[in-house]
Amino acid sequence: MKHNFGAGPCILPQEVFQEASKSVVDFNGLSILEVSHRHKDFVAVMDEAIALVKKALNVPEGYSVIFLQGGASLGFLISALNMMRDAKKASYINTGAWSKKAMTEAKKAGFEVIEAASSADKNFNYIPKNVAVDPSSDYLHFTSNNTIFGTQFREIPNSDVPLVCDMSSDIFSREINVADFDLIYAGAQKNMGPAGTTLYIVKDEALGKSTSAFLPTYLDLKTHAEKDSMFNTPPVFPVYASMLNLRHLINNGGVRGAQERNEAKAALLYNEIDSNPLFEATVGEADRSNMNVTFLMTDESRTDEFNALWLENDIVGLKGHRSVGGYRASMYNALPIESVQVLVDLMKHFSSKG
Amino acid sequence: MKHNFGAGPCILPQEVFQEASKSVVDFNGLSILEVSHRHKDFVAVMDEAIALVKKALNVPEGYSVIFLQGGASLGFLISALNMMRDAKKASYINTGAWSKKAMTEAKKAGFEVIEAASSADKNFNYIPKNVAVDPSSDYLHFTSNNTIFGTQFREIPNSDVPLVCDMSSDIFSREINVADFDLIYAGAQKNMGPAGTTLYIVKDEALGKSTSAFLPTYLDLKTHAEKDSMFNTPPVFPVYASMLNLRHLINNGGVRGAQERNEAKAALLYNEIDSNPLFEATVGEADRSNMNVTFLMTDESRTDEFNALWLENDIVGLKGHRSVGGYRASMYNALPIESVQVLVDLMKHFSSKG
Repeated sequence: MKHNFGAGPCILPQEVFQEASKSVVDFNGLSILEVSHRHKDFVAVMDEAIALVKKALNVPEGYSVIFLQGGASLGFLISALNMMRDAKKASYINTGAWSKKAMTEAKKAGFEVIEAASSADKNFNYIPKNVAVDPSSDYLHFTSNNTIFGTQFREIPNSDVPLVCDMSSDIFSREINVADFDLIYAGAQKNMGPAGTTLYIVKDEALGKSTSAFLPTYLDLKTHAEKDSMFNTPPVFPVYASMLNLRHLINNGGVRGAQERNEAKAALLYNEIDSNPLFEATVGEADRSNMNVTFLMTDESRTDEFNALWLENDIVGLKGHRSVGGYRASMYNALPIESVQVLVDLMKHFSSKG
Repeated sequence: MKHNFGAGPCILPQEVFQEASKSVVDFNGLSILEVSHRHKDFVAVMDEAIALVKKALNVPEGYSVIFLQGGASLGFLISALNMMRDAKKASYINTGAWSKKAMTEAKKAGFEVIEAASSADKNFNYIPKNVAVDPSSDYLHFTSNNTIFGTQFREIPNSDVPLVCDMSSDIFSREINVADFDLIYAGAQKNMGPAGTTLYIVKDEALGKSTSAFLPTYLDLKTHAEKDSMFNTPPVFPVYASMLNLRHLINNGGVRGAQERNEAKAALLYNEIDSNPLFEATVGEADRSNMNVTFLMTDESRTDEFNALWLENDIVGLKGHRSVGGYRASMYNALPIESVQVLVDLMKHFSSKG
């Protein structure tokens, strides 16, 4: 068995792979790939997927759950277009790469974009605390977890304006209070399912209020909320596999259970990084991500040796992003703690050999 | 075995289902659903998918092949935004439903839309022949095949302006000359693969020439052409399954082979409809689709009886669209002629009982 520490698309539960694989050849007598999206069997899948999201996150009344396409990259635009109000000003917290892309699309959508806070001064290795939100902003946007720099918001930022959040890389990994947000969006391919669908959770009151002169049908969340994500052909298989994964989540303690497992995995690995002289974390304790653990070797001359070691021990996807270097252990919901233990044991062993 | 006449998502070859199913549990030691899109194994899949499209359609030099998300519904917008030039006028041939939606998005993109021809006067049961293209139009758009009304262009319309075509429902079903077009787009879920990815074939000269004030990054085809469809996480599994299906197409006589089989299936069914007094085609001979055969019963009192008959004979998806009524037999590439023979035999049998 491989230990998949990849940053995404990423590991999902083996049971999900098994059941999805079966349905590709037999889903009520057809392949799931050849079932019409209008057939009652798939309508039931979509309905269940939406219901499971609501259950897992305890989504209150007055919110719609939507499955779309295009990833967060299209979500940067869709969120901006749908949240545009009279001010046409938007505040963004810049925690690196993904926030920057989100700001670019908001500008292209016609916003005056205000950087309410930034951690650019230290290569995004922390979460900025002093957030100055222009009170006339249409909304405040933040990226809850940064996959590249290994940072994660522990608490939502203080804000008097509506909150919009890109939760692509940590949704379903910990409990959240959906009522704090006007709009949440997330590419599926971390904790929700395979690549190819994007989740939106939007306050119904926020729909139909855009002041954008440009709001084509597909980019208007109202279109999809009103059609229960069936305005056009949805990405059938990615939605189906996400539904299976959400079922698995609910059957294994829900988001609270996942959060406890994720905290245990993170504690195990960060503890090793902090106590092992050969390694150091890139992020201070307060802002560390439980999803993506970024760390460096203190003795670069031993890099090749360590790389060979984890590769020959069936570890996959540990190489750090080029913007940070070193290593990145992504530990999404489906990564078992046993895989983290394998990595920790290798680090201990490697250090003792030195 | 079921005979799947569904309009899409639709039947694909059994071999594709088998291999895709296997890869969901084991693709070089991981599930295809957990492989990073940046891993060389998936980069090879994307490269092969693009190469197979080029091979199947004999795509000339100077064209880019792109796999995106969002279906034709987003394609209506993307095509308009990317093809906008100084005139901001676009001509559309209106052959029903899909053309109308395409026109709506072009208007939302800021175009003056000109209906160059329409078959609305007869509920879209023919392909208009007298196309008057305003020579100052930025392009002429048409829908090569209409799934709802069962019509199909036999020849491309005459035009002195660039041609843009929504080929969602007949791409890869017959030979085309890509050089005739500036832009072709197509949702995957008929002849290319499962739902969840959308194909664009665009003349490189047409990229980067948009005059639209609004051209966000994801909607700009130049973004994706330059990044080989890897600007952001692609829909990994839909692209993978499309690649398998394109391999299967190439190994079975390519598009020419598919076209011959499709013509034989269409001849078999239309011949029965024309010779059986209980049925009548809704479209005149010259404009009939080889993909979606629409027909009515001449004796409506026997509808329930016929419906029971095909249902108990494992035929799936034969019900006509509500805009036309009656029946619709969709016969995409993967539908075997044996399934058509089953339907024809039932029609004969049913008629002889009358």
